[in-house]
Amino acid sequence: MQLTGSQYIGSSTSLKGDHFFQAINPVTGEDLPGQYADATSEEIDAAVALAEAAFSAYGKSNNIARAEFLEAIADEIMALGDDLIARAMEETALPEGRLVGERGRTVGQLRLFAKVVREGSWVDARIDPALPDREPLPRSDIRQMLQPLGPVAVFGASNFPLAFSVAGGDTASALASGCTVVIKGHPAHPGTSELVFRAILAAGIKTGMPDGVASLIHGAGHAPGMHLVQHSLIQAVGFTGSFKGGKALFDLANNRPFPIPVFAEMGSTNPVFILPGALEERGSKIAEGLAASVTLGVGQFCTNPGMVLMEKNMAASFKATLADKIKVNPGGTMLTKGIRQAYEGGIRRLSETTEVALLSEGEADSSATGAPAKIFTTTTGKLKSNPELAEEIFGPSSILIEADEREELIESAKLLDGHLTATVHGTPSDLQEYQDLIAILERKVGRIIINGFPTGVEVCHAMVHGGPYPATTNAQSTSVGTNAIKRFARPVCYQDFPDSLLPDALKHENPLNIWRLVDGDLKKE
Amino acid sequence: MQLTGSQYIGSSTSLKGDHFFQAINPVTGEDLPGQYADATSEEIDAAVALAEAAFSAYGKSNNIARAEFLEAIADEIMALGDDLIARAMEETALPEGRLVGERGRTVGQLRLFAKVVREGSWVDARIDPALPDREPLPRSDIRQMLQPLGPVAVFGASNFPLAFSVAGGDTASALASGCTVVIKGHPAHPGTSELVFRAILAAGIKTGMPDGVASLIHGAGHAPGMHLVQHSLIQAVGFTGSFKGGKALFDLANNRPFPIPVFAEMGSTNPVFILPGALEERGSKIAEGLAASVTLGVGQFCTNPGMVLMEKNMAASFKATLADKIKVNPGGTMLTKGIRQAYEGGIRRLSETTEVALLSEGEADSSATGAPAKIFTTTTGKLKSNPELAEEIFGPSSILIEADEREELIESAKLLDGHLTATVHGTPSDLQEYQDLIAILERKVGRIIINGFPTGVEVCHAMVHGGPYPATTNAQSTSVGTNAIKRFARPVCYQDFPDSLLPDALKHENPLNIWRLVDGDLKKE
Repeated sequence: MQLTGSQYIGSSTSLKGDHFFQAINPVTGEDLPGQYADATSEEIDAAVALAEAAFSAYGKSNNIARAEFLEAIADEIMALGDDLIARAMEETALPEGRLVGERGRTVGQLRLFAKVVREGSWVDARIDPALPDREPLPRSDIRQMLQPLGPVAVFGASNFPLAFSVAGGDTASALASGCTVVIKGHPAHPGTSELVFRAILAAGIKTGMPDGVASLIHGAGHAPGMHLVQHSLIQAVGFTGSFKGGKALFDLANNRPFPIPVFAEMGSTNPVFILPGALEERGSKIAEGLAASVTLGVGQFCTNPGMVLMEKNMAASFKATLADKIKVNPGGTMLTKGIRQAYEGGIRRLSETTEVALLSEGEADSSATGAPAKIFTTTTGKLKSNPELAEEIFGPSSILIEADEREELIESAKLLDGHLTATVHGTPSDLQEYQDLIAILERKVGRIIINGFPTGVEVCHAMVHGGPYPATTNAQSTSVGTNAIKRFARPVCYQDFPDSLLPDALKHENPLNIWRLVDGDLKKE
Repeated sequence: MQLTGSQYIGSSTSLKGDHFFQAINPVTGEDLPGQYADATSEEIDAAVALAEAAFSAYGKSNNIARAEFLEAIADEIMALGDDLIARAMEETALPEGRLVGERGRTVGQLRLFAKVVREGSWVDARIDPALPDREPLPRSDIRQMLQPLGPVAVFGASNFPLAFSVAGGDTASALASGCTVVIKGHPAHPGTSELVFRAILAAGIKTGMPDGVASLIHGAGHAPGMHLVQHSLIQAVGFTGSFKGGKALFDLANNRPFPIPVFAEMGSTNPVFILPGALEERGSKIAEGLAASVTLGVGQFCTNPGMVLMEKNMAASFKATLADKIKVNPGGTMLTKGIRQAYEGGIRRLSETTEVALLSEGEADSSATGAPAKIFTTTTGKLKSNPELAEEIFGPSSILIEADEREELIESAKLLDGHLTATVHGTPSDLQEYQDLIAILERKVGRIIINGFPTGVEVCHAMVHGGPYPATTNAQSTSVGTNAIKRFARPVCYQDFPDSLLPDALKHENPLNIWRLVDGDLKKE
């Protein structure tokens, strides 16, 4: 399949920029075919203008049409077949099995959102009927539902070339809500981005969607993304990536003449607490699971467990097994040279301080961006005076933090910043005894896992992939799971509307047969 | 009832500040009894620390206890009796009937939130049960619900000394969600604030709430509010007031080391569109209603209709009636000298430009802060080149904007900023013909009213009192109605928790008997 290297202003290709870049094969360090360019301001303006024009129809599209569009995107992605997987492998060095799985996750996500849209109750319809005879004043007829925000910007992530990129979670939820999208592809996988975007395009044409419901722009530099976020017609931003990148977009968006919400998921260290009973009963087994979780996908997950806390007196067999497992880990190829350099920088930072010791390191992978797994150790006391030890190192490393006693462990939990997840390993009696720990973690993270590992973020209705700052810029939302649809919508209230002018979701006869809060009671009539 | 003039750190009074201020009677311009002082940083820190300590119990309080607390606050406010109304009258110059009505609204609001809390389904519980046999990977048990954010800051508003102040909408929704609150009272009515706070205090004691579930601090200067918003333990801010004040808090909160959400409702001009058929059929009647809405409460409502748009060819009788009604309006006493000065400044700005003409003015009230009603006229063409003509003037004024033709009216709607409300007066055939106008307004405002007036914001489940910037700093929320409870909460996910450790809302047997989304289906079992 020929790659054009173009920006896509809806269905029209454009190539006006002259800051060129190419994808690089992380294994060999060599350029891959296909020349891309940073989108110009003019191209971005055209994409946003088309997204605005498309919104007037798409934002009013009915549930069935929108669901069919999402399902068609899933079908078209599958129809790309091996070409997509092959290009993604070249661009990311992620193994075939992982990418096939990620494709499954991506199309499953689109189909799940389609199901939610088709069912329709997500709009949180609320109806307080008129009370014309109420004393001292009558009540108007008042109805409320969620409406899409308008054109939104979505940034592709490096570490999920499919599931968090062009047709990933943010695009799926934005399109599901009725927003149009201008997607900024991640420069590490522009070919994958282009292929997936063409699937969206084909699906839009097949299901009769307005041109410009989605556009794709590229950029290796910061300028295109910054221009996009500052465009006056863009109404919200979805981002998954580094703290630095997410925070920069957040600041930019807040300083616009018309500030807009930024839903930036910026990763975290994902503390894992191993309680004494569990450590004694199955320390080795937990160590095996942890080693697998830390090194999964060369540690390139936002939910990678980068920090393990425990009381030291029972930690011996856990540590021995973890050290052994890491030692034989073959390492792996990281996504980009930049990510590998950042990993090396983080490792160097820890290696050079006297506050931590190296427990174990894995083998080095010989590829251009190869990286070995590393496990460090320190104590809660040292962490307290050096909180930077807990900063995220994106890659296959983790730091074990040992406490002398229970109180120190609890104290460390209280000092945690916001994280996406926290994990607790404990026996039933551990968990009873450490309820105070769990109560602390409820305030620190988006998701708490008992006796599992944080990697592996299920796409379902109840997932929260989010959490307090600095894990995200908006702890009141999630970037995985069907609840994400609400980040791109806002409530609009209709007072004393004639039935014929009301949106279907609010009409008297409930033609969409959705759940609605009528006078405070959930009903389907 | 003796006023202490103190800050309330929970139940403890404190008076350490030396920047003193007193309430002023707006009618006479004279000081009222009771000396207040700006809270010191130390006092604010103590209030927040106590709110944090109280949160560990209050955030986990059960639905019934929390509902009883809210109801007890309502009862205690009623028990203040005439003393409260008398002091509020002295401090605000609002008439007795209005304040009695506002008190009814305030206690009704508390009781409605209590009902929502007691019922319990607001937490949006979601359950995706484990699928241990799923291929290729089993699914964990994943559950999600809303949890309160922690201690939050609430700012009292000048224009609703009861309904948007110490025990107003933000406090009611924050306490309903399980947050503890530090309230910054508005300096225009410190006595009213103190009385109402004591009702909260008495209710907390009667229902066994932890000390510090609410605190009250005062401040005539900006420093106490700024210190409060910047406190590291404060998790969110609720504010109703001026654009300048709200925007300052928004910027402050975004620039904290740990940014927090600010729900600032900053008012708007609330455009009213009068369509040709309605203008012809009942222009005079609409003018009567508009005159009443513009002058209600001396125009001191966030939803005051400050801007009226229509096509000019049918406007004669509408304008004549409006002019007559305004001319005989007796004017009224504004809330504070500052508000009256700002009103005069806004009126002067319009009076001095050649772009507008004065249509009619009412009588001047002779009180110290008396203000006359004023109606101006201009054209859509002049508005387009002078968009500042549409800026809010807080008080009893409005500007009529006449269009030569339909297209100009639509064009003006497209150029609108964000507003709390928009109103459309039309006959059934007008409304059919102007569906494009309504579609534009759906993107501009939080609430659209057909054939009514925007003043009068019903407290119910379906109300949206919010809207796009600059009407608010967060268009995804509402500050009136039960949906406001969600602004102070965020979703937390529980993965593979033993049933005994789950919050009641997520336990297998559904002990709270609430609606939950189980595997995507709403159920009560």
